[in-house]
Amino acid sequence: AGFTIFTRVVEICVLIVGMIWVFGYLGGVGFSPIYKGENTNDPSVIFNWHPLFMALAFPICMAEAVLAYRAPIATTADKPQRKTLHIALQSAALLFIILGLVTTIKSHTLKRPTPIPNFYSPHSYMGLFTSALAVIQYMFGFYAFAFPKLSQKDRAASVPIHAFLGKTVLVLGLATMTTGIQEKTTLVQTLMKPPGGMYSPYFVLPAVLELLLMVTGIAVLFHH
Amino acid sequence: AGFTIFTRVVEICVLIVGMIWVFGYLGGVGFSPIYKGENTNDPSVIFNWHPLFMALAFPICMAEAVLAYRAPIATTADKPQRKTLHIALQSAALLFIILGLVTTIKSHTLKRPTPIPNFYSPHSYMGLFTSALAVIQYMFGFYAFAFPKLSQKDRAASVPIHAFLGKTVLVLGLATMTTGIQEKTTLVQTLMKPPGGMYSPYFVLPAVLELLLMVTGIAVLFHH
Ligand code: HEM
Ligand code: HEM
Ligand code: HEM
Ligand code: HEM
Ligand SMILES: O=C1O[C@H]([C@@H](O)CO)C(O)=C1O
Repeated sequence: AGFTIFTRVVEICVLIVGMIWVFGYLGGVGFSPIYKGENTNDPSVIFNWHPLFMALAFPICMAEAVLAYRAPIATTADKPQRKTLHIALQSAALLFIILGLVTTIKSHTLKRPTPIPNFYSPHSYMGLFTSALAVIQYMFGFYAFAFPKLSQKDRAASVPIHAFLGKTVLVLGLATMTTGIQEKTTLVQTLMKPPGGMYSPYFVLPAVLELLLMVTGIAVLFHH
Repeated sequence: AGFTIFTRVVEICVLIVGMIWVFGYLGGVGFSPIYKGENTNDPSVIFNWHPLFMALAFPICMAEAVLAYRAPIATTADKPQRKTLHIALQSAALLFIILGLVTTIKSHTLKRPTPIPNFYSPHSYMGLFTSALAVIQYMFGFYAFAFPKLSQKDRAASVPIHAFLGKTVLVLGLATMTTGIQEKTTLVQTLMKPPGGMYSPYFVLPAVLELLLMVTGIAVLFHH
């Protein structure tokens, strides 16, 4: 139980440090690009939803969903309640993944004078692969466990493969986050050249985030 | 067996694509910085050992070490032979990790006119965390299994924790590689501005590498 509390504290720390980075240093969020003059804008405030939504999706919702059968927040929940919690959290995770994808693509497309191309980075291909696996896993989950489609025997046989793929999607999501954080940090380093040098919060916050994400993954999967 | 062959093919592909990237596009390797004039140099040829050594360490040696008990290359090996193979491969992995760390630090320190600072990126902190865990795991492995220090009972009790931490170190190594590849790619994108635009081999090769690393991790751990 102590270890589960530790796990949740780390998850919350990811969100807090992520928010300090996004709101304190990357310019926060907004609903339309910042006007910078005739046909020129800065859509960062739209982009910045991307890391926030992804932080809600993987180290919060999906991590808790993967814990839902073993260490649910509602500790006294019975098996059907745990299942409901699992589905609710996975649905929330999928929603946040979609919102996270939409916001980065929007921010690229709205950029003026020239839109930023989509899907050029290693990070974006990791992200697409991970998102596709998450969608497959989600549909497979419904197919196998939510409708009376599969026999009890086939359900039982699906559990190990569903559990393996589920843990895989969580780990890939966390790994994709670390590459996105690295990409943003290197873009800030080379293009924005923030004051304070290499050991300013612009570099320390994302480094702390990477460490927290690694610990999140280890701590959640140590329950398994 | 077919799946194990697939796994090894993917591992080899990581090395091949990595070598095409390093030798074909990043300038290859060498033993001293390239002279660029009075007190000015380019130490990339020393840095470039870093990704090569890390590719040998994690998706080759450590991946094969983690397979050594279940699907050793020498398929007919008995248990003691598998153990010898496991230790040999983990020793090779650790050697390559150390060489990988030394070469990037060297390349930073030798840079002229101004040395590049060490340990400023999120990637480098992930790398230090992962390397430290690898060393701990290695020493713990020797302590628990190589000397007649622990009783048979304590050895057996150590196996699950050793196996969990071992799989963790492999995954963290692969994840650290993806952030390093992203960092290098973004540095190339912003500082070197290579010809051919966003869909040139400078961007496609590292994107392919990230996908291969994800598949490597999934394929190796699917044996477990
Ligand atoms: C929370 C930490 C994250 C940060 C800081 C981050 C950062 C970035 C950045 C800087 C870009 C724009 C440059 C580019 O196209 O590569 C981007 C794009 C993208 N990210 Fe992330 N990312 C994060 C998490 C994720 C996750 C978890 C996924 C998917 C599972 C993901 C999927 C994508 C995709 C598909 C794109 C390409 C969108 C486009 O090209 O329009 N990201 N991200
Ligand atoms: C992206 C979506 C999903 C992911 C990543 C995921 C992940 C997981 C993981 C890791 C487990 C193992 C939990 C444990 O052993 O404690 C699990 C179990 C389970 N999941 Fe999912 N899941 C997803 C979606 C779904 C959906 C949509 C459903 C049903 C509609 C579902 C139903 C189940 C059930 C019934 C189990 C428990 C099996 C058992 O132990 O009896 N999952 N899931
Ligand atoms: C194979 C793919 C890899 C690539 C392309 C890569 C790329 C880079 C780059 C560009 C740097 C210099 C900038 C910086 O300091 O962040 C660097 C440094 C570093 N890398 Fe990697 N890396 C890879 C794998 C790894 C792995 C697997 C580890 C450890 C497990 C690691 C650990 C480090 C450390 C500790 C530094 C900092 C060294 C210093 O500051 O002097 N790297 N890497
Ligand atoms: C970084 C270093 C190491 C890593 C990442 C690692 C990883 C692993 C993993 C993942 C397993 C589980 C294999 C399986 O279940 O098929 C394992 C098993 C084992 N490792 Fe290691 N290992 C490391 C170093 C060592 C060392 C140095 C020794 C001994 C000197 C050792 C001895 C063993 C033994 C005896 C087992 C088999 C336990 C059993 O199933 O009876 N390992 N290791
Ligand atoms: O639909 C389900 O399938 C599994 C299990 O019954 C398979 O054995 C489970 O926990 C469900 O809720």
